[in-house]
Amino acid sequence: MKDNAGTDCQDPMSAFDDDIRLEPAGEHAWTGLVTPRWNIGANPNGGYLLALAYAGMRQAMPAYPDPLSVTVHYLKPGLPDRPCRVDVEVLSTGRRIGTARATLFQDGTVRLAVLASLGDLATDDAPALTLEAPAMPLPEACLPRSPGEQGLAMPILDHVETRLHPDQVRAGGAGRAQVSGWVRFRDGREPDTLSAMLFADVFPPAVFGLVSAVGWVPTVALTVQVRRRPAPGWMLARFDTVDMLGDRLIEDGLLWDAQGRLVVQSRQLALLRTPGGSR
Amino acid sequence: MKDNAGTDCQDPMSAFDDDIRLEPAGEHAWTGLVTPRWNIGANPNGGYLLALAYAGMRQAMPAYPDPLSVTVHYLKPGLPDRPCRVDVEVLSTGRRIGTARATLFQDGTVRLAVLASLGDLATDDAPALTLEAPAMPLPEACLPRSPGEQGLAMPILDHVETRLHPDQVRAGGAGRAQVSGWVRFRDGREPDTLSAMLFADVFPPAVFGLVSAVGWVPTVALTVQVRRRPAPGWMLARFDTVDMLGDRLIEDGLLWDAQGRLVVQSRQLALLRTPGGSR
Repeated sequence: MKDNAGTDCQDPMSAFDDDIRLEPAGEHAWTGLVTPRWNIGANPNGGYLLALAYAGMRQAMPAYPDPLSVTVHYLKPGLPDRPCRVDVEVLSTGRRIGTARATLFQDGTVRLAVLASLGDLATDDAPALTLEAPAMPLPEACLPRSPGEQGLAMPILDHVETRLHPDQVRAGGAGRAQVSGWVRFRDGREPDTLSAMLFADVFPPAVFGLVSAVGWVPTVALTVQVRRRPAPGWMLARFDTVDMLGDRLIEDGLLWDAQGRLVVQSRQLALLRTPGGSR
Repeated sequence: MKDNAGTDCQDPMSAFDDDIRLEPAGEHAWTGLVTPRWNIGANPNGGYLLALAYAGMRQAMPAYPDPLSVTVHYLKPGLPDRPCRVDVEVLSTGRRIGTARATLFQDGTVRLAVLASLGDLATDDAPALTLEAPAMPLPEACLPRSPGEQGLAMPILDHVETRLHPDQVRAGGAGRAQVSGWVRFRDGREPDTLSAMLFADVFPPAVFGLVSAVGWVPTVALTVQVRRRPAPGWMLARFDTVDMLGDRLIEDGLLWDAQGRLVVQSRQLALLRTPGGSR
């Protein structure tokens, strides 16, 4: 944990680093375990599965310590407490940017497909243009995301602490499709560019702020743009949906570090399911 | 041209449809020609190359007539007037959504990698939430994108007519990183969900509105979210950069149809090059 690029400096005490550990299984393949510790209900969190798939890319491309632009398409739900295989195909290795794709399999079926460009965000430039962090009550004045908010057990909340804006905790309470708040690991592991991808997918869907009768909001495709390495401490996040057509919505996310610097822009296409329903 | 899904209804008189035509070359492979007619300077336009790669996906997955979320990473510039091969791997075929990846090769080298989910946008829902089209002078009051604006020949402008907001034509003239205007094919081919992807990449970079000494803005990764099939006629587009850090910028694009309905949300990670420079 000497730097925060998330390369080979995994904290042995970190649940996250433990649970995305992969073992080599051939020249371009790794195996690991999808633990149930990051579940939301019966399904592993999508951000956790992305981090697992990305862990294979990171091992395949050690010259590029940071994700720059990562897109994942979710084809089938992950299977908790079951092994996974991650295949990585390195597509190009430029001077500053490397590009690869990864496929996460369980039980012989593709669950996630990832396409990513990686680089090095060690240089700490000041932005020429940026998005400022919004005003937000301090973490102590925000409210924990409650297990059972969707009638689901949420083991992920034992590992990721999210504190929501007090106006946005109750479904439909915000009067708009916005969710915002703070996020960090409970075990003190500091954020890095890898965990920033996880954090882009651990809040309730923004549409919960507008619609109270939401069942499930499965992600079809998620892109995470990582802009810089985060400072230690809480990260601040805001998610908005301003485009919802039929049952297809787009959610935009922004994450800032404890110094108020923009770290991530995310965007996902998701489906809005009333209680019941399937893809 | 009975519908506007862009499936098998290619207009024989359309330069675009002609120039993205692929021939089968095996079970999961197609071959075609990267024509120089869509060049910007010496390089084929990135939107054109994406449409070529996507044409392979469309042939591989005829049950899904429309792109929903398409991400392309650009690894190397395309080679004009040279053949290409497009390999497609179908990853999943769900009831409503199919997912595939495509690879576009020239001279044995990967140029583009695409990951996309496809579906059917025939149902014409009214949006629950949307982004309204901005006020814009009529096309006749906007100004044509001029060949030679970057000191480059632009054959693409013989096929795609773009008319820019009169305040945003001169580099640096807008005082902000925004470019907006109208776009259509010159030969009368109406827009569809496929050409909407091309149109997301045929305007000058938004950063031209802010910075006058821009050389080249190569795209690293582009995601196009297609929200609906466009109505016939001009499309209206606006591109903004609000996040620029070092030489890495994010550009967000929005395209509406002639009825003012949102058709596309796009986002790209690009590099800002001063005149000279390379990836």
